Amino acid sequence: MAVYTDVTDEDLAGFMAAYATADVVSFTGIAEGVENSNFLVQTEDGDAYILTLYEKRVNPADLPYFLGLMEHLAAKGVTCPLPIKAKDGSALRTLNGRPAALFSFLKGLSPRRIATAHCSGVGAALAQLHRAGADYAAERANALSVRAWRPLFAQSAAAADSVAPGLAVEIGRELSEIEGAWPSGLPAGVIHADLFPDNVFFRGDAVSGVIDFYFACNDLYAYDLAILMNAWCFEPGCEFNVTKARCLLRSYDAVRPLARAEVEALPLLARGAALRFLLTRLYDWLNTPPGALVRPKDPREYLAILRFHRGLSGPGAYGLG
Amino acid sequence: MAVYTDVTDEDLAGFMAAYATADVVSFTGIAEGVENSNFLVQTEDGDAYILTLYEKRVNPADLPYFLGLMEHLAAKGVTCPLPIKAKDGSALRTLNGRPAALFSFLKGLSPRRIATAHCSGVGAALAQLHRAGADYAAERANALSVRAWRPLFAQSAAAADSVAPGLAVEIGRELSEIEGAWPSGLPAGVIHADLFPDNVFFRGDAVSGVIDFYFACNDLYAYDLAILMNAWCFEPGCEFNVTKARCLLRSYDAVRPLARAEVEALPLLARGAALRFLLTRLYDWLNTPPGALVRPKDPREYLAILRFHRGLSGPGAYGLG
Repeated sequence: MAVYTDVTDEDLAGFMAAYATADVVSFTGIAEGVENSNFLVQTEDGDAYILTLYEKRVNPADLPYFLGLMEHLAAKGVTCPLPIKAKDGSALRTLNGRPAALFSFLKGLSPRRIATAHCSGVGAALAQLHRAGADYAAERANALSVRAWRPLFAQSAAAADSVAPGLAVEIGRELSEIEGAWPSGLPAGVIHADLFPDNVFFRGDAVSGVIDFYFACNDLYAYDLAILMNAWCFEPGCEFNVTKARCLLRSYDAVRPLARAEVEALPLLARGAALRFLLTRLYDWLNTPPGALVRPKDPREYLAILRFHRGLSGPGAYGLG
Repeated sequence: MAVYTDVTDEDLAGFMAAYATADVVSFTGIAEGVENSNFLVQTEDGDAYILTLYEKRVNPADLPYFLGLMEHLAAKGVTCPLPIKAKDGSALRTLNGRPAALFSFLKGLSPRRIATAHCSGVGAALAQLHRAGADYAAERANALSVRAWRPLFAQSAAAADSVAPGLAVEIGRELSEIEGAWPSGLPAGVIHADLFPDNVFFRGDAVSGVIDFYFACNDLYAYDLAILMNAWCFEPGCEFNVTKARCLLRSYDAVRPLARAEVEALPLLARGAALRFLLTRLYDWLNTPPGALVRPKDPREYLAILRFHRGLSGPGAYGLG
C-alpha cells in the first residue's frame, strides 16, 4: 500500500487542465500498488480515472514501451488501463517532477481467495494477452530474465542463510542447473511477467481487467504461463492444487495452443519462475529498511514452490495430458 | 495512509449481502485515514460507498455515539457520511471480527494548500455543525480534554527533551497555566474536535462534506473553533495568517454568533488546543515503532503554534473587532 508523492488540489487542477475530461469531483489516494503512487480521480460526468505517478523503481526510459503496449492491447480488445491522451496528444506527462499518466479506470474485484474458476479465467486472459501483443512493434528485454538471476543473487548470497539455513548453497545449485537447462527456441513475444491475483479484476468468474504492465517485456510465452501457474495454483500453505493448474493450463491452451516443447519445458520454466520471485523477494527482505511503507513479502513461500517443481518427473504433475 | 485489515472478495460479498445496495463492481483500499481501514465500494447502479473497519484505536463502546451523530447531523442538512442501514436496520455491524459500517461516499477534494476562501467556508461549516448537533441526545466526554493532558504528558515527559531542548519544562509550565485559567460556563455541546483540512471536502470554494467524526465529543464550542483556527490559519513555516483567521472567525460568527466571553477566552483556548495536539504528536513521535505503516507528525509544529498564542495580549491579534 502506498502513496509516495503528495499531490495538492492545485497540482491536480493544473495537471487535469491539459485533458478534455470533465471537472474533477473527487480525488483519492489508493492503498494498492507498491511501485508507484496511484490516485482515483472521479469527474463530474461520472467517469473515473487512475492517475499514476512513477516513482524511482520504474525507469522513465521504459515508460513509452509500457504505455504504448497498453494502448496496443486495448485496441485489440484486451481490457487493460487505456492511457488517456491530453489535448496535445501526449499520454506520458509530468506532475510534481515525476513522470505521470492518466488511465481509464477498470471495474472489477481482485480475488483475494482463488477459486478454480478464477484460474480458468486468468489462463485464457493470459493467452489472449500473448496473442494480442504478438504484433506490438516495440521491444523491451526482460531485466529479470534467467541471465539476471546470478548477479541478483550475488547481492543477497552472504545473508541468505539468515532467511533459511542452507539457502545460499541451495540457490547456487538451482542457478547452475536452471541456467544450463534453460530452453531456447520456444515461442516468444510480449509477456506480462507479473500476473498475480492483485493485477487481475473479475466480474463474477469472468476476467474484467488486467493491470500493472510495469514488468512487461519480451520473453518466452511459456515462462509467463509458469509465473501465472505459480501465482495462482498454490494454496496458502504452498500446497500445489493440481485442479487449479489443469484448469489454468487448459484454458490457456484453448486460446493459444501450447507446442509440445513448451509443455515439456514447463517444470524447468516453473522452477525458474519460482527462483526469480524467490530472488527478488529475498533481496527485498534483506534490504527493506524497517521504516518502509511497504512490508516485504516472505521469500520462503517461493522457496517451497521451487522445491515442489524440482521434485517433479515431468509436466504430467500439472494435470496435463 | 493505511489499510490494516485485509478483506477478501468473499468476506465483502458476505458483508454486502446484508444491504439492499446494488451489486459491487469495484472495491479499492484507500490510502487516507490513520485510525481505521477504509475501502471505496462502487456498485452496479453507479453509487459509491465507504466501508470502514474500526481498528484498535477506536473504542467500540463509542461507535453508537459516532454513528448516531452522523445520522443526526445528516438529517439536519450537514453533509457528512451517512451510515447505511442493513436490511435488518442495523448500521453498526461486524466484518473479519472487527466493528464495521458502510457509509455514503462524499464527493469533493480536500485542500492540500489552504486558501483564504477555504477558511471562510470551513468556519461557517463548523458553526453549522455546532448548531445541528445542539439537540443530539447522546453524550460523550472528551477523552482528550484539559484534564487528560497532564496524565498524557506524564507518558512522554522523560523523553520530551530529545524532541526539543527544554521541552519538558516548557510543557509543564504551560500545563499549570492553562489548567488554572481554563474557562467554565462557556457554550458547550457536540464538537468535531479534529477538523483538519484532510477531514473537509470542497467543491470549488464551498464545503461539500465533513468527515471523520471519531474524536467527536461534548465540550466547549469555542475550543473546537480554536482547534480549527490552529489547523487552518498557520502557514507551512508556522507563521500565523491573520487574514485567514479573520475570515474563519467571522464566517463562524455569522452562523453561530460568538459570546463576548468566548472571544475573550480564545487565546487561552488556542494555547490549550495547541498543547493538546503537541502532546498527542509528542506521544506518537516517541512511541511509533520504526516499522509502522503511518509516519508520525512532527510535534514541533504545534510547539511553534503554542508559543505564538502564548505571546498574544488578546483576541485582537486574530483579526477580530
